[in-house]
Amino acid sequence: ATKRVKCSDWVTLNVGGKYFTTSKSTLTTKEPDSMLARMFAGDEDGYLFTPSNIDKNGAFLIDRSPLYFEPIINYLRNGQLIYDSNINPEGILEEARFFGIESIIPTLEQIIAQQSVNRDNLPLT
Amino acid sequence: ATKRVKCSDWVTLNVGGKYFTTSKSTLTTKEPDSMLARMFAGDEDGYLFTPSNIDKNGAFLIDRSPLYFEPIINYLRNGQLIYDSNINPEGILEEARFFGIESIIPTLEQIIAQQSVNRDNLPLT
Amino acid sequence: ATKRVKCSDWVTLNVGGKYFTTSKSTLTTKEPDSMLARMFAGDEDGYLFTPSNIDKNGAFLIDRSPLYFEPIINYLRNGQLIYDSNINPEGILEEARFFGIESIIPTLEQIIAQQSVNRDNLPLT
Amino acid sequence: ATKRVKCSDWVTLNVGGKYFTTSKSTLTTKEPDSMLARMFAGDEDGYLFTPSNIDKNGAFLIDRSPLYFEPIINYLRNGQLIYDSNINPEGILEEARFFGIESIIPTLEQIIAQQSVNRDNLPLT
Amino acid sequence: ATKRVKCSDWVTLNVGGKYFTTSKSTLTTKEPDSMLARMFAGDEDGYLFTPSNIDKNGAFLIDRSPLYFEPIINYLRNGQLIYDSNINPEGILEEARFFGIESIIPTLEQIIAQQSVNRDNLPLT
Repeated sequence: ATKRVKCSDWVTLNVGGKYFTTSKSTLTTKEPDSMLARMFAGDEDGYLFTPSNIDKNGAFLIDRSPLYFEPIINYLRNGQLIYDSNINPEGILEEARFFGIESIIPTLEQIIAQQSVNRDNLPLT
Repeated sequence: ATKRVKCSDWVTLNVGGKYFTTSKSTLTTKEPDSMLARMFAGDEDGYLFTPSNIDKNGAFLIDRSPLYFEPIINYLRNGQLIYDSNINPEGILEEARFFGIESIIPTLEQIIAQQSVNRDNLPLT
Repeated sequence: ATKRVKCSDWVTLNVGGKYFTTSKSTLTTKEPDSMLARMFAGDEDGYLFTPSNIDKNGAFLIDRSPLYFEPIINYLRNGQLIYDSNINPEGILEEARFFGIESIIPTLEQIIAQQSVNRDNLPLT
Repeated sequence: ATKRVKCSDWVTLNVGGKYFTTSKSTLTTKEPDSMLARMFAGDEDGYLFTPSNIDKNGAFLIDRSPLYFEPIINYLRNGQLIYDSNINPEGILEEARFFGIESIIPTLEQIIAQQSVNRDNLPLT
Repeated sequence: ATKRVKCSDWVTLNVGGKYFTTSKSTLTTKEPDSMLARMFAGDEDGYLFTPSNIDKNGAFLIDRSPLYFEPIINYLRNGQLIYDSNINPEGILEEARFFGIESIIPTLEQIIAQQSVNRDNLPLT
């Protein structure tokens, strides 16, 4: 089930100072209409990034949180929204909205609403 | 909703040994009167940093905690105060005070006061 | 109980932007029929990676989550499935399936099913 | 409230393999009699480090835990002992003792003693 | 209580892709009969590592988990077994056994056995 990756398909993103290496197809296939997909939709010298938005290591600069980008990129890789117990889903929701990953927004909103209900129903201390 | 970033707008901060890449507009727009905004308010060769405060990678040196700077910079990016369940809000408050990010100080003070109330009301062991 | 490693045996993987250094024998011995083993099964200039899938540091590019690859590679090193309390086993399961590490899949499925049962039996709030 | 940092004031420490960038004044002002302060008390070519204890990046080598040095250096920066909920205070205490940061030792000892009392009073399982 | 480190005493280990900087005396003094001590017991060009097991940065390659090596190396530094609340002691035990750090094995086994008892005595859900 490994997918073939063409030579020019690998991209490295510098998200807020942390590097993520992935493929153009991961960024564009799962949610082709997202802003993230559209950033990488052109042919390889046609990405929406101007040279000034590429760092000295050749990585594409994105001014967002690396912490919450991690579950977003994993979702684009394998279609599952998975995150660790200490991670705040509100942070993931912010990034999903920013990058336009619409398909996980309802799930995240539901998780956050449920947490809020649980908190309100806690016995008073 | 992505915002255009001019060539000279990208800045890398070396906060206590960890690199954060962001844009001048993120640092200066949300809280223009903060000390952090004022550090980057000049034109690009007019930042408040002297060359001795720039490291060999061109990053601006800031002698503070990288751990608690992370939610601060995210707040400046998206206007939301979001942090993981293991992160101590007192650390974020210290950084908010240092950098002069006034708009999140009351929220943080309230969260910390509430935690303290909850602790005091725990049944004795 | 240290095992001898031949000169060409060391490999570095770039998994989603994070580097893992290990040996070919770790990748191929424990689960020889896995996709991961088969990627490194050839002689050393015969790996399944084309040059376009090797980064500028000589690391083999793999477009997957570094967070959940960590317990997978440790399992291949020492035969134990061990992970920290904050790590989501569903993330490990996804990677085990992708890389074809069949021998830990039933255990992970059982752990996840049990967690789900426990959640459903919680008292209503 | 930012403090001026002279050209030669920046120092980078390699603590157990992790880099911390800070200023000489942070290391020496808060606890001037600590071993850590004394290591950096000389004029800048008079630090207690011999060249053999400086790594190839110019960082001062210190053979201690980076994990527990983090709250120590933050304490020296802002005068507050702050750490995340997953961090073991016994680790911080060890580093405080090693570096001679006397002013936080009683607080840490009290926190650890209290945790021990709480554990002993848990109902038997 | 700082200990003097000779010029050639510093070593950097590449444990599974993460760098740890320490001294030969840390690796060899506390548990001189451990496999880890014996790996670094020779004079400095007599370590048990062949050149093929040294990476391009001069670090000694060790094919083990960096996550669980951290408390091991700290134990060798200060004689205390200390780890954070999210860290799985079974992972530390595996590394202690692999590297032959015999003096912490009984403690770790006891901690793990106790956790198992506690789990078995939980009320059924």
